[in-house]
Amino acid sequence: PTVSLDVDSDDAVSEDGSEFMAKSIYIVSDGTGWTAEHSVTAALGQFDYCLVDRGCPVSTHLFSGVDDVERLLEIIKQAVKENALLVYTLADSSLSSAAEKACKLWGVPSTNVLGPITEAIASHLGASPSGLPRGASRVPLSDDYFRRIEAIEFTIKQDDGASPQNLAKADIVLTGVSRTGKTPLSIYLAQKGYKVANVPIVMGLDMPKTLSQVDPKKVFGLTINQSVLQEIRRTRAKTMGLSSQSRTNYSEMDYIREELEFAGKLFAQNPVWPVIDVTAKAIEETAAVVLRLFHDRKHKCTMSRISKRY
Amino acid sequence: PTVSLDVDSDDAVSEDGSEFMAKSIYIVSDGTGWTAEHSVTAALGQFDYCLVDRGCPVSTHLFSGVDDVERLLEIIKQAVKENALLVYTLADSSLSSAAEKACKLWGVPSTNVLGPITEAIASHLGASPSGLPRGASRVPLSDDYFRRIEAIEFTIKQDDGASPQNLAKADIVLTGVSRTGKTPLSIYLAQKGYKVANVPIVMGLDMPKTLSQVDPKKVFGLTINQSVLQEIRRTRAKTMGLSSQSRTNYSEMDYIREELEFAGKLFAQNPVWPVIDVTAKAIEETAAVVLRLFHDRKHKCTMSRISKRY
Ligand SMILES: Nc1ncnc2c1ncn2[C@@H]1O[C@H](COP(=O)(O)O)[C@@H](O)[C@H]1O
Ligand SMILES: Nc1ncnc2c1ncn2[C@@H]1O[C@H](COP(=O)(O)O)[C@@H](O)[C@H]1O
Ligand SMILES: [Mg+2]
Ligand SMILES: [Mg+2]
Repeated sequence: PTVSLDVDSDDAVSEDGSEFMAKSIYIVSDGTGWTAEHSVTAALGQFDYCLVDRGCPVSTHLFSGVDDVERLLEIIKQAVKENALLVYTLADSSLSSAAEKACKLWGVPSTNVLGPITEAIASHLGASPSGLPRGASRVPLSDDYFRRIEAIEFTIKQDDGASPQNLAKADIVLTGVSRTGKTPLSIYLAQKGYKVANVPIVMGLDMPKTLSQVDPKKVFGLTINQSVLQEIRRTRAKTMGLSSQSRTNYSEMDYIREELEFAGKLFAQNPVWPVIDVTAKAIEETAAVVLRLFHDRKHKCTMSRISKRY
Repeated sequence: PTVSLDVDSDDAVSEDGSEFMAKSIYIVSDGTGWTAEHSVTAALGQFDYCLVDRGCPVSTHLFSGVDDVERLLEIIKQAVKENALLVYTLADSSLSSAAEKACKLWGVPSTNVLGPITEAIASHLGASPSGLPRGASRVPLSDDYFRRIEAIEFTIKQDDGASPQNLAKADIVLTGVSRTGKTPLSIYLAQKGYKVANVPIVMGLDMPKTLSQVDPKKVFGLTINQSVLQEIRRTRAKTMGLSSQSRTNYSEMDYIREELEFAGKLFAQNPVWPVIDVTAKAIEETAAVVLRLFHDRKHKCTMSRISKRY
């Protein structure tokens, strides 16, 4: 469903009355709130069928950095007024039990998102959770921190076929025609620490020579359904304000079909490159496929997995 | 702690024996696995004190797109062999109860990450979860999809002070001296749908004129502790292979102090800009602060919150 930012906090009393029924979900964290928000978003996926067209509108309200009991209780009191569901992550056990008690007392439905997983990890490791929220212990700058930043900066510099002489330095090279989502996919993977280069396929233009020198196991082709691509390109041409001349060419069906065929031939010439159909896939879904294949190729595991060491 | 990708899956038998004790966490999803991975990473934050220096090493193994019971059971059998903890998100209730039963039967400790939150939302909305995994219902391209992609593309184009004529089109403008994390922060915010421009502050150089024409409520200054900045710049100079001449200047303490003072004066001249100290903050932590201030300014709520409509 369409997500919109910047909902007015008092939308429950908005003018046309249609928003009167919006159910509130309060998200509270002593950290950033991104973990709880991610979980709420995924769980809301189970209600897509009734969220579509705002059939059962939901509004989420994220409260981050909540690290004292006064502020916590103030928020829960507000949740009572708005009939909200409270979803929280609180590292300090005195805070999380205060939340639990207050919710019980005041009748606010609530879920402690990380409680069960933290307990499970504690008994798995045979160690107790520190109870310290994110930011309490100032961890020195890690290798991981520098690696991610380097990956992001590399990926930005390599966007859209720039600096082909650096292709060999990439962990992953993405290729596909315009609007197959190379840029957002590259950035998503970069945030996860991979150096990504993306190289556009344009009908009639040669691919950079350096691409043929890159280990083909790093290269991934992206393809997409013709009519969906046309829809995306039309939207693109409108927002870019392309002249109607170039717009027609760019988003015309014959041209798109030929360009996808041109890409298909290139992919056929490079049978080692996996070709991923991005039609109707969200960026993070395509990223999951790319990384699964990438790690399989590196490790030749019997069972497809992505492993990390903490 | 330092996270490393590409752990060998059979690291339990690695040579020096130090990794023999690495405890495995299996992450299983019928979707991408990113939600469960995010939750595991946050929960592991509670064990930082024993993860540091690999005192109690943990390795995570992510299995995504697990949507049939055969593959699920195969993974759980492997978890038995590796003494792993199983953390899962499975939308289909027959799959999630299969996981629960198999884990009980074979003695695998396990947590269903989204089960409780999905039930809480179901009773809050008075609607049943669809049981359909991500990707099962092909949602048409939403406005949200296009908005995010536009934000990412805008943000890349505006990186590092490029195209100052477009500053007015940004939702958020970040400014600070080199290595205050403007680029990764911009990209993080762009992924959340905000168009971000970042403008470097360089001692002795004028800021672009267009910056003074931008609504000052959109602008955020970044600052950082001197010695931490020096450490970051030294690492940077090394990986960039700067000549030792320019390296010295760039990462020399006197120069850094003067540059931070220069930035401080600029911030003092623009008292509306909030100045955020990024020292020892992770990118997502700074992002949380920026967005909290950004939404407060827009809505002048009594209670600091970020609201969204689904
Ligand atoms: N590195 C960390 N150290 C300690 N606690 C953390 C860490 N990262 C996240 N948390 C905790 O995990 C929960 C979710 O974090 P967040 O996603 O920032 O809201 C909060 O209770 C945080 O305090
Ligand atoms: N848009 C969605 N529609 C239905 N289920 C979803 C959606 N997004 C995530 N999920 C489910 O939420 C869980 C976590 O998703 P993921 O982060 O992709 O692993 C999985 O069980 C997914 O199937
Ligand atoms: Mg692109
Ligand atoms: Mg930068």
